[in-house]
Amino acid sequence: MRGQFHFKDDFVYKMPVHFSGHPFYPVRVVYGDMTCISVPFETDPESIARFVPEDFELLKPRVDVQYSNCRDVDWMAGGEYRLIQVSVPVRYMGNGEGLVGDYVLVIWENKACPIIGGREEDGMPKLYADIPSERHKEEHWYTGASYEGCTFLSMDFHRQEEVELKSGAVENHREINFFGWRYIPDLGKGGAALSQATLYPQEMDVVRMWTGEGSLSWIDLGAERHPGQFSIIHELARLPVVRWMEASMFKGSARLNVADSRVLS
Amino acid sequence: MRGQFHFKDDFVYKMPVHFSGHPFYPVRVVYGDMTCISVPFETDPESIARFVPEDFELLKPRVDVQYSNCRDVDWMAGGEYRLIQVSVPVRYMGNGEGLVGDYVLVIWENKACPIIGGREEDGMPKLYADIPSERHKEEHWYTGASYEGCTFLSMDFHRQEEVELKSGAVENHREINFFGWRYIPDLGKGGAALSQATLYPQEMDVVRMWTGEGSLSWIDLGAERHPGQFSIIHELARLPVVRWMEASMFKGSARLNVADSRVLS
Amino acid sequence: MRGQFHFKDDFVYKMPVHFSGHPFYPVRVVYGDMTCISVPFETDPESIARFVPEDFELLKPRVDVQYSNCRDVDWMAGGEYRLIQVSVPVRYMGNGEGLVGDYVLVIWENKACPIIGGREEDGMPKLYADIPSERHKEEHWYTGASYEGCTFLSMDFHRQEEVELKSGAVENHREINFFGWRYIPDLGKGGAALSQATLYPQEMDVVRMWTGEGSLSWIDLGAERHPGQFSIIHELARLPVVRWMEASMFKGSARLNVADSRVLS
Amino acid sequence: MRGQFHFKDDFVYKMPVHFSGHPFYPVRVVYGDMTCISVPFETDPESIARFVPEDFELLKPRVDVQYSNCRDVDWMAGGEYRLIQVSVPVRYMGNGEGLVGDYVLVIWENKACPIIGGREEDGMPKLYADIPSERHKEEHWYTGASYEGCTFLSMDFHRQEEVELKSGAVENHREINFFGWRYIPDLGKGGAALSQATLYPQEMDVVRMWTGEGSLSWIDLGAERHPGQFSIIHELARLPVVRWMEASMFKGSARLNVADSRVLS
Repeated sequence: MRGQFHFKDDFVYKMPVHFSGHPFYPVRVVYGDMTCISVPFETDPESIARFVPEDFELLKPRVDVQYSNCRDVDWMAGGEYRLIQVSVPVRYMGNGEGLVGDYVLVIWENKACPIIGGREEDGMPKLYADIPSERHKEEHWYTGASYEGCTFLSMDFHRQEEVELKSGAVENHREINFFGWRYIPDLGKGGAALSQATLYPQEMDVVRMWTGEGSLSWIDLGAERHPGQFSIIHELARLPVVRWMEASMFKGSARLNVADSRVLS
Repeated sequence: MRGQFHFKDDFVYKMPVHFSGHPFYPVRVVYGDMTCISVPFETDPESIARFVPEDFELLKPRVDVQYSNCRDVDWMAGGEYRLIQVSVPVRYMGNGEGLVGDYVLVIWENKACPIIGGREEDGMPKLYADIPSERHKEEHWYTGASYEGCTFLSMDFHRQEEVELKSGAVENHREINFFGWRYIPDLGKGGAALSQATLYPQEMDVVRMWTGEGSLSWIDLGAERHPGQFSIIHELARLPVVRWMEASMFKGSARLNVADSRVLS
Repeated sequence: MRGQFHFKDDFVYKMPVHFSGHPFYPVRVVYGDMTCISVPFETDPESIARFVPEDFELLKPRVDVQYSNCRDVDWMAGGEYRLIQVSVPVRYMGNGEGLVGDYVLVIWENKACPIIGGREEDGMPKLYADIPSERHKEEHWYTGASYEGCTFLSMDFHRQEEVELKSGAVENHREINFFGWRYIPDLGKGGAALSQATLYPQEMDVVRMWTGEGSLSWIDLGAERHPGQFSIIHELARLPVVRWMEASMFKGSARLNVADSRVLS
Repeated sequence: MRGQFHFKDDFVYKMPVHFSGHPFYPVRVVYGDMTCISVPFETDPESIARFVPEDFELLKPRVDVQYSNCRDVDWMAGGEYRLIQVSVPVRYMGNGEGLVGDYVLVIWENKACPIIGGREEDGMPKLYADIPSERHKEEHWYTGASYEGCTFLSMDFHRQEEVELKSGAVENHREINFFGWRYIPDLGKGGAALSQATLYPQEMDVVRMWTGEGSLSWIDLGAERHPGQFSIIHELARLPVVRWMEASMFKGSARLNVADSRVLS
């Protein structure tokens, strides 16, 4: 008997395709309760440009490392996950739009479901790591990332003062263009089946914010302890830190405009 | 400053692309220590054909549900993960090769790393679930799958007798063609950026084997408790079980011939 | 060479004793961010009295099952864990104080550290279970408990209306006497090395509260799937539910007055 | 209505007592599949004697650090857990028996159930840690321990040669006396409710064994990152390593003679 599953034109599928399929509609997902710690630093432009595709222009030699504790995530029925994202400010030069945003170098997340969707549907370079919830002793906050029991990143933040946010002020609403590079390899040989710059717009409403001093400590695990990601950790660990910039902690909610994701060309 | 990263022809990349890239070589991964429980059942052909793409012919109305405890996985530095795979026997009709194998309906795995690679590099429809190690009370063995604390599959196996395997016999070496459907959606609209049947050949050397009686119990979690996968569980839960076929447990090692994966056309 | 470790009079130790020891001081631990769902039901007095020691009088045939998501726990450096507690309202009759409170039948917690302390230092009958964070679809909230992938309790709460709490009102500050039975067995024979009723006072400041309808669904896992706790689950599963009482959800902070714990006699 | 639960003479209970109770019988638990890595080192006698109670005599200034991957554990229905145990060779001097064995300084385990039983029923100083399964790159094996994503111990073993074990030889059957100190504190003040040396005899049948070189690397997490155990890690981290002794890896099965546990006096 012949298989009965066939694709409908313009439907949206995801693997496993044969259990999926629905008309396109503009998905926007809401993250109702976010707690973020951002630890940026200035680096050397040559060092960081090696990891930015030629279609982008590096705007500043600044690396943003941001931890987010994502709670009340609507597409997870109000569930939660945590992530640490590394990005750099860029302009997309591959077309005439002059889009400005952040090129994402890597995102570690502690659940598989958002990783799969983010990679395949938005070109976000998500990988798995264990990421504990933020903890603190008085105003010293910390978190980090580990793989199979081996810590590879410690993040520290010494919280200093709260920033007074004017109610309803425009600066509390942040719109950010995240850029990724979606890539699916050919099978059985080198080369790409799909290779393209992507845009993934997100918004955040900040309701509380603090500034302070932050720092990062990378542990270069090596190929034996982390065969899949050691080179990524190694490259980030050896990026020069010219100076630590003002770090911050903030709380609020976010909206990920999945339906506004698009291929750049 | 312009980004410096560019792709080299015929190199192999994976996201994040800018930290990757190497010449193609024929990867074959070895799983040194596998313990599997296979619980097949006969179903109704019409019911199951709905989930098999038209390019395949259903050979038998048989559903194989196989649990594997994968240990000493070489690409994980000897680490481990567990999976439950659902497949049906098919012939690929999309070309003249007449390839026979198993079309994979879904694979649940309890670690993100093999999920990412399996989906993007082999078109295997892998999803995340918590899968405990097999346990037993005397000869009653069991395992299952759950999501965020909600069990959705219980697998039971009553082990009866060991099958004497002739040392070096050809039937102890199983070569299996697994078929998938690799699909990457377009962004911001319906339709596919990539949609193709894939072949993923695997081999297993069985060193011990037992037969017995098996059964499966699906719990239809519903959209509230499992928003991302409820329809998959729902469809599998309502597949008619015409009869349970002989179940088995076996131990051995496997070789996944990643480099022999290819797009079918 | 003789061991050098010796106990100091009136110091406080915990296992491993030789790494511990400090003068007594009145520990009070603060749980800065609590989200609780309470699902009480009326049962049959004879059925529940079987599980209450003779030194207590059952005040009402009411069983309280309360889920707590404990965050910003000071002794865990602001970390978090979750628990589900089952208790009944009682009066302690073993002395002339006439203390009224809740006798705790069982507490499942998803981290080992609070389990150890609660059992040994307060006589609280804590056991391990996996307990996911509360999730919801609109106003239908749910959570539960599982062991090695096998769900044994589902808790549902349909939230209806928020209760207006008067700022600073006395009813927002709840003081509760929890009673336990601390028991350490003899070794190599039956009988107790230690067996005593205990008092563990706690306080909670409620800042938001909602009422609604709740229900519980127990799954009787059996000795094979949960050899250590099947009889506990079995007994709770077969308690008659005469009627579901008003359920509630509340948020606030708690103070556990560990130093006011005492042996009752 | 008065509570109906009462203790029966000579029955065995564990918390929650009111759901438990059975006549004493000699429990012996079998661990069918053990993989262990033992990394001993010589230390300074004064340094280590500080952590050994006066009732014991230190036989050698030797610290044994042993990782065990425990599988097919009968009381867990064939389930598994992992542990890292630190012990020193001693003679018990508190009575005239002259018992020789190992005083256990600490045991980290990655599941709560064996921790609870081991502490309360055998006086074993068990604590929680995340402990990944052993992994290896060729003959370099490693594992470790972490807490909430923070590694505090890395264990490395370079396997060199397999030891030929004579079938049935007496040296393959190891009987070991483990000593602990069972301690339960008074409530609401300093001092002990229970404080006693304990004996916990165990046996192991070794079926394969390798020797090699081992080493340990402790990371002194500090009170902020590990408030409950930082001082234990700190003390172990600063023990002088006079020399690394021959390390080994072995596989086999174990029998824990719980019923032969007894209080020493």
